[in-house]
Amino acid sequence: MNTSASLEPGITSTTPIQSVQSHMAIETDAIIIGAGPVGLFQVFELGLLEIKAHVIDSLASVGGQCVELYPDKPIYDIPAVPVCTGQELTDNLLKQIEPFGATFHLNQEVTLVEKRDDGRFNLETSAGTRFVTKTIFIAAGVGSFQPRTLKVDGIDQFDNSQLFYRVREPARFAGKNIVICGGGDSALDWALNFVGKAESVILLHRRDEFRAAPASVAKMRELCDNYEMQLIIGQVTGYEANDEGSLNGIKVTGLDGVTRRLPLDYLMVFFGLSPKLGPIAEWGLDIERKQIKVGTEKFETNVPGIFAVGDINTYPGKKKLILSGFHEAALAAFGAAPYIFPDKKIHMQYTTTSPKLHKILGVESPVFD
Amino acid sequence: MNTSASLEPGITSTTPIQSVQSHMAIETDAIIIGAGPVGLFQVFELGLLEIKAHVIDSLASVGGQCVELYPDKPIYDIPAVPVCTGQELTDNLLKQIEPFGATFHLNQEVTLVEKRDDGRFNLETSAGTRFVTKTIFIAAGVGSFQPRTLKVDGIDQFDNSQLFYRVREPARFAGKNIVICGGGDSALDWALNFVGKAESVILLHRRDEFRAAPASVAKMRELCDNYEMQLIIGQVTGYEANDEGSLNGIKVTGLDGVTRRLPLDYLMVFFGLSPKLGPIAEWGLDIERKQIKVGTEKFETNVPGIFAVGDINTYPGKKKLILSGFHEAALAAFGAAPYIFPDKKIHMQYTTTSPKLHKILGVESPVFD
Repeated sequence: MNTSASLEPGITSTTPIQSVQSHMAIETDAIIIGAGPVGLFQVFELGLLEIKAHVIDSLASVGGQCVELYPDKPIYDIPAVPVCTGQELTDNLLKQIEPFGATFHLNQEVTLVEKRDDGRFNLETSAGTRFVTKTIFIAAGVGSFQPRTLKVDGIDQFDNSQLFYRVREPARFAGKNIVICGGGDSALDWALNFVGKAESVILLHRRDEFRAAPASVAKMRELCDNYEMQLIIGQVTGYEANDEGSLNGIKVTGLDGVTRRLPLDYLMVFFGLSPKLGPIAEWGLDIERKQIKVGTEKFETNVPGIFAVGDINTYPGKKKLILSGFHEAALAAFGAAPYIFPDKKIHMQYTTTSPKLHKILGVESPVFD
Repeated sequence: MNTSASLEPGITSTTPIQSVQSHMAIETDAIIIGAGPVGLFQVFELGLLEIKAHVIDSLASVGGQCVELYPDKPIYDIPAVPVCTGQELTDNLLKQIEPFGATFHLNQEVTLVEKRDDGRFNLETSAGTRFVTKTIFIAAGVGSFQPRTLKVDGIDQFDNSQLFYRVREPARFAGKNIVICGGGDSALDWALNFVGKAESVILLHRRDEFRAAPASVAKMRELCDNYEMQLIIGQVTGYEANDEGSLNGIKVTGLDGVTRRLPLDYLMVFFGLSPKLGPIAEWGLDIERKQIKVGTEKFETNVPGIFAVGDINTYPGKKKLILSGFHEAALAAFGAAPYIFPDKKIHMQYTTTSPKLHKILGVESPVFD
């Protein structure tokens, strides 16, 4: 999948749906890692089997790469949905899982998974949330999204003080001299946003072509023509700090090979998001080319009790389609049920005809002849 | 799945979307057997790969058991569709496959499939339509729907002359003495329909309880109270023919064990539809408990070039879910492509981002960054 698109400005301010943080471990039957479409539908399939789930995602909002990469771009291959955007798909899935009361833990990565002596798993997140769970469903897509960073030795010392990859507090940049790096929608949108608010705005891009919406590019060029902002073609190749250790300028090498000094208060970099497998690689799972190997009967990994569904898994014939992830989530739920209800026989029931499922879904049972 | 529901009166008069009949064989890349949700989505997945399909179904309209058995009953487990009826699901799928111009051949069963020397298949239907095709996708659900017949020795000689399991020409029954057997919606609806049009209407059911809509049952009892029709509780145990070989009466055994003679012009039987695997059993496929064995990589059967998707197939972990059929259809399409384009490398593309797929779908390519 295309992973080069950028974080949209609007998304960083999204509030988590629900966030539980506790120093006591939360005991649960199922944890779903990833709140993209497949993770959300995993909630549904577990819910039909009366299994409640906690969902963890590194992003600040649900929807995964669908919302992160193409919230407004149409998707045409969801069965029986001739066209929908990533956001609509997510909204419909959220509506569908409403009856199941899943708990969402957003803005945090899973940092630890370890098998316990009692067969369950200890699981911890970067926010300090701790769980003890019977099963784990990895629906992490291409991994957790991390901003691509500026590759300049030593500049990371200014991370989140003067160098930013996401904008969480736009107010801090008011009246300042800012340089924004990048050529996609995020870079352009933020540049246009700060014109008139910041003291000065410089957009820095490695070439004079942009991946951003044509209207934004035209607006940017108009502002440059009016001297309200400036466009520089070049790349950051170094930086300058003052005696107090503050960043006060960057070195920019232009297409002519000449390096010039550019003074600034703040540097923002929007090089897009890059998915990282991250800590998942350390849980003892059988991984092949950054994908988790599973069987096609239950979509269980080599570690009993850990399932992998959606784009993160691999098996013979695998296609990275959302609809395949949906199917995998259904079979994984059935595969997991024996870990949660070891003595219960799971019968296949249909949402159209089963009074039991109607009760679980909170709908009235129709008369069926 | 529940297969006891009846054919609704309205459905028999449905006109096929498109019907091609010819004595010349139609040469094609793909034939889909079954126009239920999975068969329809198979059109979509083949269409994305630029493979055109012909679709054959034994029913008079598309939608399969979803429309046949529960057109108005809600389905809750289609991903990203919190609730829809079988009819709505079908309508949405028809809309989704519009760009692909599939040809439908309804009201006909596939009677013959045989491998040709050139690697393709000869295929014929009960309507005499003949095809030569490179690939076959069996999406026949629980099989083709056939009306359950009256089990009285010799009475089948009156099939379609005086004994009917479907009503195709309601006008022929005007002014006649008719007996309608059954206790479901079809029996009740047709009985109510013919009151005042036929000379006499007798509803014959084995017990005084009905599977039909309560309003229809109430209406029927009201008409009986007014002597506009008659309800008899009993079962057909024999028949009487006259010298010309016409059926002129049936023998009905009541709950009291007494057999009485019931004169009639026409007998209609609505015992519901029963799915039959039918001729599929004779095509050399590996069948286990009336289901076709497939691999999970391509959902191909033991006969290369023949794929089976949806409820009719079986593999380890198989669940009879519509969403599983959708996934299977996607992988089967990719599996079939080499038979149709032996020299073309099929690249995975996404409907959200691929200008090529946008062209195939007939939609505008958005700017994607």
